This record gives sequence, C-alpha cells and structure tokens, in this order.
Amino acid sequence: MKKLINDVNDVVKDSLLGVEAAHADLVCVDHDNKVVYRVDAPVANKVGIISGGGSGHEPMHGGFVGLGMLDAACAGEVFTSPVPDQMLAATKLVDGGRGVLHIVKNYTGDVMNFDMAAEMASAEGIRVESVLIDDDVAVQDSLYTAGRRGVGLTVLVEKILGAAAEEGKDLDYLVSLAHRLSANGRSMGMALSGCTVPAAGKPSFDLADDEIEVGIGIHGEPGRERRTIGTAAEVAEMLVRPILDDLDYRGSEVIAFVNGMGATPLIELYIMYAEVVKILQAEGIRVVRCLVGNYITSLDMAGCSVTLLKADDEMIHLWDAPVVTAGLRWGR
Amino acid sequence: MKKLINDVNDVVKDSLLGVEAAHADLVCVDHDNKVVYRVDAPVANKVGIISGGGSGHEPMHGGFVGLGMLDAACAGEVFTSPVPDQMLAATKLVDGGRGVLHIVKNYTGDVMNFDMAAEMASAEGIRVESVLIDDDVAVQDSLYTAGRRGVGLTVLVEKILGAAAEEGKDLDYLVSLAHRLSANGRSMGMALSGCTVPAAGKPSFDLADDEIEVGIGIHGEPGRERRTIGTAAEVAEMLVRPILDDLDYRGSEVIAFVNGMGATPLIELYIMYAEVVKILQAEGIRVVRCLVGNYITSLDMAGCSVTLLKADDEMIHLWDAPVVTAGLRWGR
Repeated sequence: MKKLINDVNDVVKDSLLGVEAAHADLVCVDHDNKVVYRVDAPVANKVGIISGGGSGHEPMHGGFVGLGMLDAACAGEVFTSPVPDQMLAATKLVDGGRGVLHIVKNYTGDVMNFDMAAEMASAEGIRVESVLIDDDVAVQDSLYTAGRRGVGLTVLVEKILGAAAEEGKDLDYLVSLAHRLSANGRSMGMALSGCTVPAAGKPSFDLADDEIEVGIGIHGEPGRERRTIGTAAEVAEMLVRPILDDLDYRGSEVIAFVNGMGATPLIELYIMYAEVVKILQAEGIRVVRCLVGNYITSLDMAGCSVTLLKADDEMIHLWDAPVVTAGLRWGR
Repeated sequence: MKKLINDVNDVVKDSLLGVEAAHADLVCVDHDNKVVYRVDAPVANKVGIISGGGSGHEPMHGGFVGLGMLDAACAGEVFTSPVPDQMLAATKLVDGGRGVLHIVKNYTGDVMNFDMAAEMASAEGIRVESVLIDDDVAVQDSLYTAGRRGVGLTVLVEKILGAAAEEGKDLDYLVSLAHRLSANGRSMGMALSGCTVPAAGKPSFDLADDEIEVGIGIHGEPGRERRTIGTAAEVAEMLVRPILDDLDYRGSEVIAFVNGMGATPLIELYIMYAEVVKILQAEGIRVVRCLVGNYITSLDMAGCSVTLLKADDEMIHLWDAPVVTAGLRWGR
C-alpha cells in the first residue's frame, strides 16, 4: 500500500486538519467530534441539515458543508459509521430553532446510529426528522446493509434539500421533498479496481487485467457480476439500462450525474458522460442539468457511477440556487 | 490497460463530446480544430487569452475556459502538443480587437507550435503576445523540454491573467503581470505510480510497492530521484524544501496549491495540504489563499504537486475575482 498519509490511524484526523486550514472561510471543524460545520451555524430560522457517514467518499460529506447545502457533516473513520455522539453534537451545532434534518445513506451502521442520535436530540428538545437514501439499483441487500444502498443520489439530495432549507422551507416540507427525490432517483456503479482501506493495507478485491465489477457499491463491496471490460459505450449501457429498467423515465427531464470513484481521470468521465447522454437521447429522456466529476468516491477505486433524477421544475430551480461549499460551488 | 474509453484513437475526440454536452452553458467546441471556447467569444474590447497543450491534464485547459479565465483552449492528443493550425483557429475565435495572449507551458513542441501560430496570426493582422510558464524546480532539462517544465503555476496564471483581462487590462499589462507571476511562482511534484497513455497501453514507468518518484513532471517523465515513501509530512518536506531553496519566500504571503495528479483521492490531498501549511508556518510564510484538488493532472497517475506563488495585493484581488468555468468556479 502506498498512500499520502502519516499513520493509518490518523487519516481522518489529519485530513480534517487540511480541510480546516483550506476552507476556514466556509467551515469550522469540531475535532473532538469530527464534525465539519458552517462558520455561521446555527443559522437562525432555518432548518439545519446534517449528514455523515464513513470517511473515504470525499468530497462527500464535509466538502458539501456551506451555504445552500449541508449545515454540518459527521466524519466516521474510513468506511465506518460515525457514532451517535458525533451526530448529536452536529445536530446541536446546527439547530437554529426550526428543527434538524438528518440525511442518512442506507447502511446498517449509519441508520442505527442516526436513529439513536435523533432520539437523544429529541430528549434534549430538538425536533429531528430523518430521510433515508437508497438509490442503488444494483443489489437488493449487500455486505453493509439490508435493502438498497445509498449512493450517488445523496449528492443531488443534499444540494436540493440544502437549497430548499436556505429558502426557508420547514422541516415537514423538506421531508416530503426528500421523499419525492428518493422516489425519482436511481443509481448504478462499476469499478475497474478495488480500493485500499488504509487500516487494511490491501485492495478490497482484485480484478483481472480485463475485468470490471458491475453494480459496485462505494465501499468495495461486491456488485452484481464481473465482466470483461467493454467500450465506454458498452459500460454506459451496463449502468444506464438497469436504472431505466427500475424506474420509468420515459418522457422525463433528468438531472444526470456521472461520478468518478476517485482514481478515474476526468477525461474518461467526460467520455462516459457523452455515452450516457446518447443512450438517454435515444430513449427520449432529456438531460436538463448535469454533474460530471468525483463527488462521492470510494478512496482510490477506479470506476464510475451514473445517477439519474427525474426532475420537476422545483427541483431544477433548487439545483440552480446558489451553493458555496468546498466541493460544489456556483451562483455566488 | 483498463480505461473507460471507446478506442485509443478517439479519447480526446470523445471526451470533447462530453465536455460540450455537459457545459453548453459555458463553452462551445470546434471539433475539427479540437478547440474549446467561450460561448460569448470573441468578447469585444477584451484581450483574448488562450492556452493549450497535450490532453491528459484535465480539467486543464478546457475546464478553465469561461468568464474570468481562458477564452479558448486547444486540445492536443494525449501528451502531444496541438498543432499551429489549432492555435491559430483558437486565436481567431477569441480576438476581440485588443490582441490575444498565448499562455504556453515550457515543452518543446508547445513552444514551437505556439510560436508558429503567433506568426500566422500576426500575418493575418492579429496582435499576439506569448508568455512562457516554467515553474518546475525539479529538473533543469527533461525528456520533453529544454529548461524548466511548466506545471502547477499554469493554473494560477490562467486564473489571475484571466481576471485581469476581464477587468479590461491591455496586452502589455498582461504580459508584464505574467512575468511577475512567473518570477514569483515555483512548483515540485511527486508520483506514487506511473500513468498509462491510452495509445501506449502500459504505464510510463513502474515503481516498487514502497517507492515514489520525486520531482516528476506531468507526462510520466523522470523526476529527480526514486525514494522509499515516507509519511505525508516527509513527502511534503521533499516537495516544499526544494521550492523554498529555489526562491526566497521569507516573510511572504503566498497562494498555496496542492494538486492531485489524477488518481490520488481528496482525503490524501487534504492531509498533504495540512503538512505543507505546517512547514510554511514554521518558515514564517503566510498562506493567504489556497487551492486543493485535481486541477493539472497526469491521466491516472497517483501523486501530487505543490505550487507556491508569492502573491501581492493585486494578485490576491485577481485571484478572488469571479470565475465561471467547469473546473474552477466562484463569485457568480
């Protein structure tokens, strides 16, 4: 294993020092609780939005803290859920008096710990609601969770809910919007390589020189099947078709998101995006907004995922709203 | 070789299709000439700024086309200079009547071809000036060039000159500002792995499991030496010390740029950034602005580079000015 780290036990701690040093204009870091939060938290009269999960998916979630997106993010150790105390600390930091929304990706540890944190926060008089993201069409259950995994849609949900909260929407409205987003978004990913968790020291899995894993999650957990790599056009088909089979996108406008898993260069992601658009055009699906790049990664895994969100006018309006975070920024 | 491509001969062509599809609000693509240019080019009464070079360094340069940065970028084949006809086409596309500036990284092919393009443009009545970027302190000469290579500083120069042009500065002023930037910026990089040019099909070099190449360029060309990997703190020292030895930064304010070579995840780049800041603080050098991420890459190479620019008030003002490109965006 070769990595730019000091010690396998200090990866998250040291990385948060860098985040704090680089983005002091946007965020503060509570190092004891490993919570990244907006410099202006809590924002009065705004629902606070937090998320979190295991580290290793950067820029998600810490890189999405700022105006128009998250109020705070809890960083667990690499691929390990944060503990309820971290989530409670984050909840208290961002409570501006209108309640706090937890955005939770569907992994067993995250779900359990966020549930516990919500109970603890309620006991302290903070109203908390949770929304579960489970957009991965690849597998029904997996190594890390029962039910579908939460993957790329998380990025779009955090952006859109963050914008809605910034506009003053209340907690109930945000929960219903989250359900609409969940109902209308699906993802599928693939890997060209495994990823190496620092504490493990070796790749999560090995693939032959011509082999890819289709339907991969974001923790190096197994996908649907191993196949021989094809062209970008064929790989796009392997990712888009299961999404279209799972949800009826005919005649829709979509936000299309081609995400890199961490080690795949941008030049390849743009090739993939072009191929995804070709398939969607042939199906009469209109891409009205897009995102291409490394946003929800899996350490040093090579590969990509595709997320398609059927977007209505409100979602598009909220997508376009200003966002000022380290990982996503426009409009200001 | 496993890559998300259709054909080794179509990598640049196919990727530009993706860029065009993803960023139609910002740029147009002249596919015949492989030129990415601003949707509003030529901008009247503004000096046009173009750059370009071999592909494989994305988001540079095409991802830096837009308001407040480049007016156009020429994409060569992977790690291969664009030809003069491409540069001439770009020059003509962005000439708004106040001349055109060519930002040229110091590689033999780029320098020769941009020179020729400048002559051809002059013959057509367009005033062209060129500025050469050669900020890499690692080696005096290399496989690809005589003199120092142009690396990370290019990103900062494109941002700052782009902002100055947007503010209406004339060609002479931009050339003198470019010289100040060149005089005050230095870079050094390292690699954890080689990179694989699609047409070559195998890595540019192989490193042992515990080995790094220090002083690497952006084309997989050799660096200063191979060493056993150390901690992030030690690697930061290997990169920052030669920069400080080359130029006197004592008492300065700097823009610090920690760049990923393409396959190194953000979590590691932030660890590196924290270590770079520690060294600079100990030397009494104040970081006033920073950039951390994959901006001038080397395909799928793992590794990073550090660039330090001694910045005066004008440079900081121009750094902060709005920029709206696919790769760098703030202020609007």
